[in-house]
Amino acid sequence: MLILMKSNASADQLGAVAARVAEIGLTAHPLQSASRTVVAVTGELNGHDPALFSSLPGVAKVMRLTVAFKLAAREVREEDTVVDVAGVKIGAGQKLAVMAGPCSFESPQQVLAIARAVKAAGATIMRGGLFKPRTSPFSFQGLGKDGFKLMDDVRRETGLKFVTEAMDEEGLELVEQHADMIQIGARNMQNFSLLRKAGKARKPVLLKRGMSATLEEWLTAADYVLSGGNTQVVLCERGIRTFATHTRNTLDLSAVPAVKELSHLPVIVDPSHGTGFRQYVAPMALAAVAAGADGIMVEVHNDPDKAKSDGGQSLYLEQFSELMQAIPAVAKAVNRAV
Amino acid sequence: MLILMKSNASADQLGAVAARVAEIGLTAHPLQSASRTVVAVTGELNGHDPALFSSLPGVAKVMRLTVAFKLAAREVREEDTVVDVAGVKIGAGQKLAVMAGPCSFESPQQVLAIARAVKAAGATIMRGGLFKPRTSPFSFQGLGKDGFKLMDDVRRETGLKFVTEAMDEEGLELVEQHADMIQIGARNMQNFSLLRKAGKARKPVLLKRGMSATLEEWLTAADYVLSGGNTQVVLCERGIRTFATHTRNTLDLSAVPAVKELSHLPVIVDPSHGTGFRQYVAPMALAAVAAGADGIMVEVHNDPDKAKSDGGQSLYLEQFSELMQAIPAVAKAVNRAV
Amino acid sequence: MLILMKSNASADQLGAVAARVAEIGLTAHPLQSASRTVVAVTGELNGHDPALFSSLPGVAKVMRLTVAFKLAAREVREEDTVVDVAGVKIGAGQKLAVMAGPCSFESPQQVLAIARAVKAAGATIMRGGLFKPRTSPFSFQGLGKDGFKLMDDVRRETGLKFVTEAMDEEGLELVEQHADMIQIGARNMQNFSLLRKAGKARKPVLLKRGMSATLEEWLTAADYVLSGGNTQVVLCERGIRTFATHTRNTLDLSAVPAVKELSHLPVIVDPSHGTGFRQYVAPMALAAVAAGADGIMVEVHNDPDKAKSDGGQSLYLEQFSELMQAIPAVAKAVNRAV
Amino acid sequence: MLILMKSNASADQLGAVAARVAEIGLTAHPLQSASRTVVAVTGELNGHDPALFSSLPGVAKVMRLTVAFKLAAREVREEDTVVDVAGVKIGAGQKLAVMAGPCSFESPQQVLAIARAVKAAGATIMRGGLFKPRTSPFSFQGLGKDGFKLMDDVRRETGLKFVTEAMDEEGLELVEQHADMIQIGARNMQNFSLLRKAGKARKPVLLKRGMSATLEEWLTAADYVLSGGNTQVVLCERGIRTFATHTRNTLDLSAVPAVKELSHLPVIVDPSHGTGFRQYVAPMALAAVAAGADGIMVEVHNDPDKAKSDGGQSLYLEQFSELMQAIPAVAKAVNRAV
Repeated sequence: MLILMKSNASADQLGAVAARVAEIGLTAHPLQSASRTVVAVTGELNGHDPALFSSLPGVAKVMRLTVAFKLAAREVREEDTVVDVAGVKIGAGQKLAVMAGPCSFESPQQVLAIARAVKAAGATIMRGGLFKPRTSPFSFQGLGKDGFKLMDDVRRETGLKFVTEAMDEEGLELVEQHADMIQIGARNMQNFSLLRKAGKARKPVLLKRGMSATLEEWLTAADYVLSGGNTQVVLCERGIRTFATHTRNTLDLSAVPAVKELSHLPVIVDPSHGTGFRQYVAPMALAAVAAGADGIMVEVHNDPDKAKSDGGQSLYLEQFSELMQAIPAVAKAVNRAV
Repeated sequence: MLILMKSNASADQLGAVAARVAEIGLTAHPLQSASRTVVAVTGELNGHDPALFSSLPGVAKVMRLTVAFKLAAREVREEDTVVDVAGVKIGAGQKLAVMAGPCSFESPQQVLAIARAVKAAGATIMRGGLFKPRTSPFSFQGLGKDGFKLMDDVRRETGLKFVTEAMDEEGLELVEQHADMIQIGARNMQNFSLLRKAGKARKPVLLKRGMSATLEEWLTAADYVLSGGNTQVVLCERGIRTFATHTRNTLDLSAVPAVKELSHLPVIVDPSHGTGFRQYVAPMALAAVAAGADGIMVEVHNDPDKAKSDGGQSLYLEQFSELMQAIPAVAKAVNRAV
Repeated sequence: MLILMKSNASADQLGAVAARVAEIGLTAHPLQSASRTVVAVTGELNGHDPALFSSLPGVAKVMRLTVAFKLAAREVREEDTVVDVAGVKIGAGQKLAVMAGPCSFESPQQVLAIARAVKAAGATIMRGGLFKPRTSPFSFQGLGKDGFKLMDDVRRETGLKFVTEAMDEEGLELVEQHADMIQIGARNMQNFSLLRKAGKARKPVLLKRGMSATLEEWLTAADYVLSGGNTQVVLCERGIRTFATHTRNTLDLSAVPAVKELSHLPVIVDPSHGTGFRQYVAPMALAAVAAGADGIMVEVHNDPDKAKSDGGQSLYLEQFSELMQAIPAVAKAVNRAV
Repeated sequence: MLILMKSNASADQLGAVAARVAEIGLTAHPLQSASRTVVAVTGELNGHDPALFSSLPGVAKVMRLTVAFKLAAREVREEDTVVDVAGVKIGAGQKLAVMAGPCSFESPQQVLAIARAVKAAGATIMRGGLFKPRTSPFSFQGLGKDGFKLMDDVRRETGLKFVTEAMDEEGLELVEQHADMIQIGARNMQNFSLLRKAGKARKPVLLKRGMSATLEEWLTAADYVLSGGNTQVVLCERGIRTFATHTRNTLDLSAVPAVKELSHLPVIVDPSHGTGFRQYVAPMALAAVAAGADGIMVEVHNDPDKAKSDGGQSLYLEQFSELMQAIPAVAKAVNRAV
């Protein structure tokens, strides 16, 4: 931590800062610059909030030198984490993980038709919401737990693994029990109670980036899961909220190399929510692969024009199949297999 | 809803759009413009997602004409809602509600010292977190339910009412039982399970705006609470996330007149989280009052330099007292009492 | 400047950083923390770019400790600057400056009608564009230099002073010659050639904040003007670009106290562009005054429904008059006169 | 254009809107919906500002149905434009354009060393600033017009073409005379005087996206150039300003497929400014190619640690060479040659 004093800070104010630093067991190193004093603080901050110092008289600014996340940090663990979703390995140069399926499960016919198609095209994990976080209480809220039976049937027939979102603690127990991977959605990325519960689960977690989350906040959210003992976390970039209106969100693909630098956790990309428009999904999926993502998550529907949610951003079955044919060459160009 | 066709859309594509509109019980009115056709759709959309149409062939863009929120809308209820927090009335030109207190409850001494001071300065509702939504699992997480006894003691002595945050369903039950108002924090603004639970509670709800929430998303989140039968919702603007770095968040005071136009619910402002720096809290609190807010929520601490959280944005007791002396003249200038 | 080394940086890498620091005449102070080394650098950076160091092997991050702006900084000049617009003083607790007028000058009748009304209501400076920075080349581009005669006529009759925008170097010469204050618009805030030219002008400058400018960039843009010898710069907050859609821009009123802390220059607020909707202008103008602004700039039109630009955000003459009646009480509450 | 009336709008208000529509030569089609009236307006808006109607009594909202840009629109010209930079063709499935070079020209040795290396690696156009738009007036401002001789020497030796930025009208004349392509920088994207001048130039223009520009604003800026008669415009995505801090800007690769849908102009990507950190440049360059970009612009330096500007985001010569070896496979995967 660094404490930048104001240029007109008094010696007394500097002394008080140093005293406060000592009081919490840290060491202060005052440095005289041309125009002002900087106090470098060494030692472990532990729970202490750097912002504390920003309110002391004479202090201009406080800068944390280390990141807030610990367990997710590359510095804690040099080698890449491999996450195992019922046998499908994600991360560390493993084959690209391809998760595909509808926004929501709607009916047995719909789920089965999509499952067969995405399986045939090469996906290994199926996505599909049972509990939907809808902006309005008057929108379709998902099939709920009735969908788990569908999941079991389709898994039996196709061998696909399943990832689905848990929106609350009760739902998380059900998802843990029935699905192969627990999704924490963007809106719940800082639902800390839910994250703690996911940290106790025995299934891997897919943690989507919050709409306005910095990488530090995202990785610190991962720390909530990791600190509970669940080491199996995959991060998913799904677009951030910006002023741009040509897409539903702005897909921040730079998060891929940046997360890989900062963390040992695998990172995949969701170009469907990341753009919001079907016609941009394939180019951005290919771009995600070229940027080094460990996988993609794509919305696919057998009849998107009649989908109960997210129809406009779902690929037709044939479009997904075409995308899957284009991916291997890009993956190979960056030394990945599919 | 309006469906804007592409300039090169075919008659067949237009026909298919009209057919799909009819299929869900709505009426299509095609309008020929200079360069393209626009289909105006009348009737009740109900659960149907306008995005559905954006994926039909030949469609350029779909625009919803009505807002997603219903129960929170001014159109549904013309007169302002008055929220009653154990006798303290908020909204509809009532006296300005002043909520003040520490970020977190830390100890009986701290709570009591602050309570006496804010009461003396004129606050009627005390704030203070027991369950803290901290970015990192390694930060101070609050006193938890032990804090409720403190609340009872201070209420007995001072008559202050209490608002405190609930982070999950279990916590919400406790807060409902012991506090006078249930706060839903910015990070949980779209925690729909929690909102539904708050809709069943018999205590008023303070719903903070999410960090990247549009007014429409915020008011639609309020719909979750209102649709459960709880009509007592106060909205709280607390800053949004932007590129600006001179403040922790960018306080969007225009939300005050805009919410009043769109909704019948009261709206207050939190200049502490809205700026993140103590020295900006008073000017922005006065600005909030001038903009027409129904109240303010301010962080105050008896020893902010040693606060366990948010010390840098908490006012000293004397500063809060000075602010409270400055407010009445501004309030009077916009026809409000304190 | 601080150079944060990676936790696994080698002694050689540290040595190379120190050598590079010495090479440009600065002093390196390596500090050993628990997990990594921080190099504090003292001395004058002058033209050197801190980013240079971020590319050296072993460096994790570089942080500048001082701000980029110099001449605009409060540290360089403690007392507030007073800007004199042909006798109208702005800043340092002087009377609130009220600038009002149409987006664009359209005709003698329009300009005169508005001039008389805003003068009667209490404005001292009239605004009005002759050279308009329109997003599209097919929109109305302003009267151009024919408008200066109008300006002279109205000045003679009413005594109002004039501020108008210069969009290029040629226009700036004309504006300098005919108007009382030169406006640099938001889109040109980093048009450095234009800023340099304004620095040579003998008229005061109104520098609007760019749509996505940090305070540091804004004040550093002011440095371009100040470094040319023109000390008469007034800053104008006019809203920033965010994800929010209920207003045209998000008016960042916290810029007012923050600029006053960082700089000695006066700062005013434009709630017309800052919101984009007539009904939000008055509440935000009052809020700006309460936040401590040195003045306001408001769009007013005698027939906004027929205005050639910005009609939707222009006040009717009577609305402006009402606003001017409401302002003194708010101003007085924060110890300002109008 | 669509005019959405308030739900409580009166018949008189509706009549006044219709009358105003007729007054400017357009036709109003009122449509009765369940809860409100929508007036669809047909005819050519020409210079009229849709915002005009938003201020009429009883109007809730005005929506433009057509985009503001005309000449840049795909609807005006179906086939892709090919831009010819002294023989190097860009767009319409032509070979990927690779522009590379230093942020600024610093010395003959530097320019020549970089030129030889990027030429050898496969670049066909060299970039390099002579007139630098620096945030601070105290930073290095570029070699100025002395650099043109350097450009001539290097062109003679290597055959490379040159693109360099013009910051003002005087500079534009020089750049037009000496370089092969005129760059309009992000900060000048809405410097309309400069754009008009570029529209009269006989050299192709590289128009960078403004830091907070929507695609509509960007393409409408292109209209300024196109409307002057210069049809040779290449667009360049270079990152937008968001809340994210792990990169200098957020590279919005979705702009590539979106621009291709909306416009006939070629679009390239600058991953150097788009990320700000050397280590993210190669992954994002590959991602840009996968997303369908018509080319890339990359900062390369022979000694980035000593560069006078942007050293931290410049590739070493060897890194650029490696990137150029990786690109063909990605390009081929999306049916492009290099």
